[in-house]
Amino acid sequence: MDLEEFRTRGKEMVDYIIEYWETIEQRRAYPAVQPGYLRPLIPDSAPHEPESFADLMADIERVIMPGASSPACTELETVMLDWLGKMLNLPEDFLVEAGGEGGGVVQGSASESTLVALLAARKKMITQMQAKCPDLGEHTIMSKLVAYTSEEAHSSVERAGMIASIKMRKLPTDEKFCLRGETLRQALEEDKALGLIPFYFCATLGTTSSCAFDNIMELGPICNSENIWMHIDAAYAGSAFICPEFRPLLNGVEFSDSFNFNPQKWLLVNPHCSALWVKRRSEFIGAFKMDHIYLSQDHQNSGLVTDYRHWQIPLGRIFQSLKMWFVFRMYGIKRLQEYIRKHVCLAHEFESLVRQDGRFEIENDVILGLVCFRMKGSNELNEDLIQRINKMGKIHIVPCRLRDKFVLRFALCAETVESKHVQYAWQNIKEIATDLEKDHQ
Amino acid sequence: MDLEEFRTRGKEMVDYIIEYWETIEQRRAYPAVQPGYLRPLIPDSAPHEPESFADLMADIERVIMPGASSPACTELETVMLDWLGKMLNLPEDFLVEAGGEGGGVVQGSASESTLVALLAARKKMITQMQAKCPDLGEHTIMSKLVAYTSEEAHSSVERAGMIASIKMRKLPTDEKFCLRGETLRQALEEDKALGLIPFYFCATLGTTSSCAFDNIMELGPICNSENIWMHIDAAYAGSAFICPEFRPLLNGVEFSDSFNFNPQKWLLVNPHCSALWVKRRSEFIGAFKMDHIYLSQDHQNSGLVTDYRHWQIPLGRIFQSLKMWFVFRMYGIKRLQEYIRKHVCLAHEFESLVRQDGRFEIENDVILGLVCFRMKGSNELNEDLIQRINKMGKIHIVPCRLRDKFVLRFALCAETVESKHVQYAWQNIKEIATDLEKDHQ
Repeated sequence: MDLEEFRTRGKEMVDYIIEYWETIEQRRAYPAVQPGYLRPLIPDSAPHEPESFADLMADIERVIMPGASSPACTELETVMLDWLGKMLNLPEDFLVEAGGEGGGVVQGSASESTLVALLAARKKMITQMQAKCPDLGEHTIMSKLVAYTSEEAHSSVERAGMIASIKMRKLPTDEKFCLRGETLRQALEEDKALGLIPFYFCATLGTTSSCAFDNIMELGPICNSENIWMHIDAAYAGSAFICPEFRPLLNGVEFSDSFNFNPQKWLLVNPHCSALWVKRRSEFIGAFKMDHIYLSQDHQNSGLVTDYRHWQIPLGRIFQSLKMWFVFRMYGIKRLQEYIRKHVCLAHEFESLVRQDGRFEIENDVILGLVCFRMKGSNELNEDLIQRINKMGKIHIVPCRLRDKFVLRFALCAETVESKHVQYAWQNIKEIATDLEKDHQ
Repeated sequence: MDLEEFRTRGKEMVDYIIEYWETIEQRRAYPAVQPGYLRPLIPDSAPHEPESFADLMADIERVIMPGASSPACTELETVMLDWLGKMLNLPEDFLVEAGGEGGGVVQGSASESTLVALLAARKKMITQMQAKCPDLGEHTIMSKLVAYTSEEAHSSVERAGMIASIKMRKLPTDEKFCLRGETLRQALEEDKALGLIPFYFCATLGTTSSCAFDNIMELGPICNSENIWMHIDAAYAGSAFICPEFRPLLNGVEFSDSFNFNPQKWLLVNPHCSALWVKRRSEFIGAFKMDHIYLSQDHQNSGLVTDYRHWQIPLGRIFQSLKMWFVFRMYGIKRLQEYIRKHVCLAHEFESLVRQDGRFEIENDVILGLVCFRMKGSNELNEDLIQRINKMGKIHIVPCRLRDKFVLRFALCAETVESKHVQYAWQNIKEIATDLEKDHQ
């Protein structure tokens, strides 16, 4: 939608909200629909081609208003997670429409996705251990549990361990910052020899620092054979998997117990939107389920519908799936793919500019929209470089540390970014680098 | 703001957004302001009288845009929590402007507020125990920790215990569904005699079922003398404390370590907005703090500004305080107080209608906007009543159970509710009750 259409549609939306308020007393206080009413009213997958905004608004009256916020909010979310799962070509185990035990949910952040997966895994392992040895106390078991992740994983994984009071062991990566199967296998052997109980592993696809990918084809079978819950965090990179050429990066997801990525990061859906899929819904419910009468307004329907409150840390929910539905239809899979590809293409354009300048070096394999680069030389030089760049305020760059190197991260993330912006940014960096060289002489 | 002003302002806002996008390339990529820039630019408390929308929008350019989303988002939040704390007449210990150790933060939900307070208390007690006995393992300590709350507390408190892996003991209430000091004192003696370690108590002001208030004037001193972290959850009722006549309900907050309520429930601020204040910020940071280089973009300023990411479960944040700022100024304290009083007044109007009908009885002290009532007779009769009411769809009522009674909860919560709606609702309930009596004869 361009700005002029946004002007028209935005103003229509203001009128729509007013009309809603003016007629609110003629509407039912609570919907009369039956559970499951929504799925038959809409297609079973996202459209390939974009649809018009007028078509979407017509569907608000046809599909959403009869189910108001409840149960429409829950039911649309379930279908949207199926749509999105199919866009990623996730195994059927993760989809509700397949009729199995799996399904998806929107979490507020990747931090919460990782945490709820860890809590579910903790509960599962405690239950398994107590089934074998009923006298074992919960904290005795917890003192022996070990979870794993790579040293390149996001800080929220370590933090999830702190919240869940679980030892989170960080494993070293290879020269591409990728965690390998052999490293995990060694750690498991060491810990089992110490009498510890490995039970959870969080893989990262697209690390925050350098967009590196753990080798889940190696790691997955190890987790499966060792009764370890494998969670995959693809917070940033996940959006790219809607493009067939990037989907191989997700190969191995079939070994995982849960998987999340954040459409809010790179699929044009506003925060808070972290999509999480699990293979066995009952294991999530096991970690959280509480029953109070004021939470079960509709006794008859209990069990027939998804109770997302049992899948997450907060109790309340917002209608996040409405934004997903609008974005998927207004862009269509086709334009969303184009959007991803544009960013990747521009990242390669930037990479190529950096490689042509002998003063600089590239530090990662540029696979998606992130380029890690630095000036050849000391960390101090590069710290000076980034300070000057950010102080000037024409562009903004966030650094990272890769092994012992201080590195600049050029991240493509604005919706409207074009080649001219990449050229502008590089020009700016080059000029500052030239000034810097003079001052350091 | 009435609907016609909303039409004008809403459309102006669409134009404003478009103008922002059209001029975005002329703006700095990152603000040039110094930490602490914002507080001197705005008053140190909320206005009593409403301000105009035009004044607010002018301040967007003057106050927010120079600091863009960061640091404006954090700094405005700190000041808004001070404003709101002063509206509630919170002790200075909880305010940042007092220059002490306290301060406020917006959490996504009351569930998260209760949980982070529990995690902070858990960390504090483990640290204290390990300082005395360095050989004690974390899980050995955790196996002895006991937290307390009333049996009327919200389910999220029990759930916080599950997440933190902490025994949460639910204590019985008096005939007003209020937890008393003597009950807590007895439980503490019992548990200490068993070798357990009491460390956390969550009081409720305004329970979900019946809007009952724990007696924090009795409970607070016990917690203080027994080294127990007292958290107060006033999710719904807290908004009412901006009215001097309801502020005595909060007396005893001075004994608490942390306090939360949800402006999203009854103070016209959208979700997600649970305001949480703590007396000692360092104890919150202790439970969560992680340092990664990509989180510390601005080395020079670290320590000078509030790092809210250390105060919460998710890492990312949205600009929730912007909504608070707009609401507080557009209404002014005066109209917000009028809004609260209108709901309480209408609750009493409904209570009076119920009391005039001999078939019904009132089940709680009507203190704020909730009336718990039922037909005299069996629970089955009342279950039938609520099913018929909700099936008709003119109004919607959520039930609860008080002791062994099934009870209907008439909750005043719509912004535009008036006496005519209360009368309409009561007429509807009366008619259904009459039909019901015929069918049950």
